[in-house]
Amino acid sequence: MPSVDELPRAVRHQDATVFLLDQRRLPGEVVIEAYTDAMSVERAIREMRVRGAPAIGMAAAWALVVELERSAEQDPQRVRRHIEQLAGHLRAARPTAVNLAWAVDRMLVRLARAPAERDALIAHLADEAQRIEDEDRAICRAIGEHGLTLLRPDCGVLTHCNAGALAVSERGTALAPLYAAGERGLPVRIFAAETRPVLQGARLTAWELGQAGLDVTLICDNMAAALMAEGAIDLVLMGTDRVTANGDVVNKIGTLGVAILAHHFGIPFYVACPSSTFDAATARGVEVEIEERDATEVTHVGGVAIAPSGVKVRNPAFDVTPADLVTGIITEHGIARAPLGINLRQLLSAA
Amino acid sequence: MPSVDELPRAVRHQDATVFLLDQRRLPGEVVIEAYTDAMSVERAIREMRVRGAPAIGMAAAWALVVELERSAEQDPQRVRRHIEQLAGHLRAARPTAVNLAWAVDRMLVRLARAPAERDALIAHLADEAQRIEDEDRAICRAIGEHGLTLLRPDCGVLTHCNAGALAVSERGTALAPLYAAGERGLPVRIFAAETRPVLQGARLTAWELGQAGLDVTLICDNMAAALMAEGAIDLVLMGTDRVTANGDVVNKIGTLGVAILAHHFGIPFYVACPSSTFDAATARGVEVEIEERDATEVTHVGGVAIAPSGVKVRNPAFDVTPADLVTGIITEHGIARAPLGINLRQLLSAA
Repeated sequence: MPSVDELPRAVRHQDATVFLLDQRRLPGEVVIEAYTDAMSVERAIREMRVRGAPAIGMAAAWALVVELERSAEQDPQRVRRHIEQLAGHLRAARPTAVNLAWAVDRMLVRLARAPAERDALIAHLADEAQRIEDEDRAICRAIGEHGLTLLRPDCGVLTHCNAGALAVSERGTALAPLYAAGERGLPVRIFAAETRPVLQGARLTAWELGQAGLDVTLICDNMAAALMAEGAIDLVLMGTDRVTANGDVVNKIGTLGVAILAHHFGIPFYVACPSSTFDAATARGVEVEIEERDATEVTHVGGVAIAPSGVKVRNPAFDVTPADLVTGIITEHGIARAPLGINLRQLLSAA
Repeated sequence: MPSVDELPRAVRHQDATVFLLDQRRLPGEVVIEAYTDAMSVERAIREMRVRGAPAIGMAAAWALVVELERSAEQDPQRVRRHIEQLAGHLRAARPTAVNLAWAVDRMLVRLARAPAERDALIAHLADEAQRIEDEDRAICRAIGEHGLTLLRPDCGVLTHCNAGALAVSERGTALAPLYAAGERGLPVRIFAAETRPVLQGARLTAWELGQAGLDVTLICDNMAAALMAEGAIDLVLMGTDRVTANGDVVNKIGTLGVAILAHHFGIPFYVACPSSTFDAATARGVEVEIEERDATEVTHVGGVAIAPSGVKVRNPAFDVTPADLVTGIITEHGIARAPLGINLRQLLSAA
């Protein structure tokens, strides 16, 4: 029986090397590449060979460790300066990803406190990278356990984009309850929406759930309403990039549409994320600037043109789902329900 | 200034040949193929080289004419039996579109009344096919005029799939008001949803509107909600394959989702179709058989795999939009509004 534990990990550190699963080549090829210096990892992050906010944070943390492990430099001053420079580059590789800056900053704080001696310094930074990874793993497991309480035998669950094992240390956020169900032998019918334009649902979610032996069916994004109407969907589970103070959810384009459909059909709509995704400094979702990405993502699929050349295109990468369309937010500390802004804050401050 | 009149026609009969614009190869290539027997046309309908309910009805009608024109058979009994057999195959080529069966049945009624002599029989059937085509052209123009009353300067109109010139004799149904606006110099911002899996919106609607010089922007299906939320959409215009007695609308997969979103945002949702699309014999949309098409339409785009090999897929080609989500139905006789079932019947019987 395949399981989530047999999935190749998105990011792994071993033998002074960072191993990254090249997510751009999935599902056609499973290619794991070895990185032995920090700037190669920085390039892999920029090129989205590794993606998912927690995963790129981990990749950056381990990149700094590997750089030290491979360096012959002994002078403590020069070692520190070099690491700080690299940290600046890594931090800027994807400027919008909060977790990337957060992970790099944790490594810099640890660097500042670590002993000067080379082996001890490496041990301290490796310990910090391992903590980031272990914490992420624990968070995913906790989200999985809380989310599992929402699942019933043979229920149909719709998910969108990829908030799975490929985006984090393991198990993912939105997919964690589904992996937990698989482990307990609870049968769940999972529907993965393909998630145009970049097709993370088709390429990544359908792949990782299938690899783990779960029952997954791929649909086009526009089929969600028909499946809800026929009663195939009992629950929606989504990830998120940011939750604002009032509980608005910023997530992959298409999330808002699914939330409105779920509301129309009276289907619970849940969002899963680590508590670090909660952005108390931003009052409402409309204040978040939505990145408009390149037209070729829409006009081309796998290098093939699917639209008239030169056609005008809109390509917002994210949308904002108002809090009142969200049934609950599943965090590592439990599930917050309406009114979301207040209950999320209570849940997080109690934890 | 380009215009709709310069678009190549989807279906054309000339010199004992049916010429079909191969819509699967648009927008990359404009290829018009010659068909000289009915079963090749039947295959072209099944393979969706020609698509759109009125267009496949016309293709089937002309297919029967061409079959006769090319046949050496003189025995009236055998000619009739042969045509009736072919009509049965053509009728079954696409189960959901009511116009296909309707056009074929008109040809059979005319066949039953036509004289036995071969040349006279051909003339009668050719006359019937030409009537179907001419009526369709007049219907599209009338729909365009009625629909035009819904448009305001600079309004944003969302459409889905292709209910345009490529789907009918000319101008289309849902797109007819937009072409009419273009002719009158009324500026309209048109948003074409790409319409996965077969991408008729990206490949056909964006192409034909662009060719005709109209202002069209391509979006992925899952972006409709975000555009509605930001106020870019003032009106939705859709085609339909079948309207049941109660006013339920059977149309391309994804229509139901857009209708629910429009309802949520208070945006008028109109459907345009010839009155022949009204299926008074079927009480409600749930009674209509929904065609489930091949998984490769979802897993492959332009021959490129975008999903893990062997993944389970759902691929319903159509969905059912309940009458209460439809603001109005634009026919050649005028616009019917709620309660749709009653008002449609009144509109059609008054005409």
